[in-house]
Amino acid sequence: MPSLQTDLAAVVTATRVAITADPKVSHAGFRAEHSLVGPTEVAVRVGSGHAFAVDQPKGIGGGDVAACPAEYALAALGSCQAITYRFWAAQLGIALDTVEVTVEGDLDVRGFFGFDEGVRPGFGAVRVAVEVGGPEPAERYEELARAVDAHCPVLDIFRNKVPVHRSLKAVETA
Amino acid sequence: MPSLQTDLAAVVTATRVAITADPKVSHAGFRAEHSLVGPTEVAVRVGSGHAFAVDQPKGIGGGDVAACPAEYALAALGSCQAITYRFWAAQLGIALDTVEVTVEGDLDVRGFFGFDEGVRPGFGAVRVAVEVGGPEPAERYEELARAVDAHCPVLDIFRNKVPVHRSLKAVETA
Repeated sequence: MPSLQTDLAAVVTATRVAITADPKVSHAGFRAEHSLVGPTEVAVRVGSGHAFAVDQPKGIGGGDVAACPAEYALAALGSCQAITYRFWAAQLGIALDTVEVTVEGDLDVRGFFGFDEGVRPGFGAVRVAVEVGGPEPAERYEELARAVDAHCPVLDIFRNKVPVHRSLKAVETA
Repeated sequence: MPSLQTDLAAVVTATRVAITADPKVSHAGFRAEHSLVGPTEVAVRVGSGHAFAVDQPKGIGGGDVAACPAEYALAALGSCQAITYRFWAAQLGIALDTVEVTVEGDLDVRGFFGFDEGVRPGFGAVRVAVEVGGPEPAERYEELARAVDAHCPVLDIFRNKVPVHRSLKAVETA
């Protein structure tokens, strides 16, 4: 898809020009709002206007109306990888026909439930298996994968610490 | 909702009994599969069987058919917080009527595009604003919030490093 590659390379160039003219343009603010609407069901609306549900599986008290938070976390990572392959293929001029990403995460539930305070509540290990299809030599896709891993936003969130500030407001109800 | 609290507390107790009998039960494996099906659109299917789309906004070459990876990452965090409030309220015997969570993340796009290799690609800062409603004194919800932050799986993924192993397979296409 040479026209797609050209289009995305043009987006990158235009973004660079815009940021050079006004550095504030480089700041992107993302937002998500959540309401607990069932025993464990959460209604989500994100800043771009899209809405979706989150729920727990039935085995641990949920209704299974949608994917669970751990699955959304893995999907954020896998989809970010796939899209970053697309953008960096355009930036590096590497032809790319297909991208398939499988992400697996291992979690020890003793952390979530507090049965063992020495067990972390999140993933102890994550595996990302990427399969790309295209006409270039394998070395070029290895080069692409290194560029993707250095610039993929959600991979950075997993691999490195993100400062999170949490505030609480309690409203008394009858 | 005293019966819901009792139900979830029973789930916790049953899980503890099951893990005590067979420690292997504490392992949970999560999975998400992703295909790049458009310029930046990704089709996702997760291990629980649910499927959904991910896309980039139109401003940077996407089709905006669904939320973007950064929004799903924030939604994973916000929904995990909300659900963890529910479970830990049951564990601690704290009445809880409502939970609303707003999550904001700041991202500098120079990291993703590689315009400045000193800028991280992921979120530089995340803010989680929780509002709970219920009949208990404010101190009990502060106690609940501390328990949630110590046991919320996706908050752990954000705040701490997760080991991620990435593999690549390149398939030659005509």
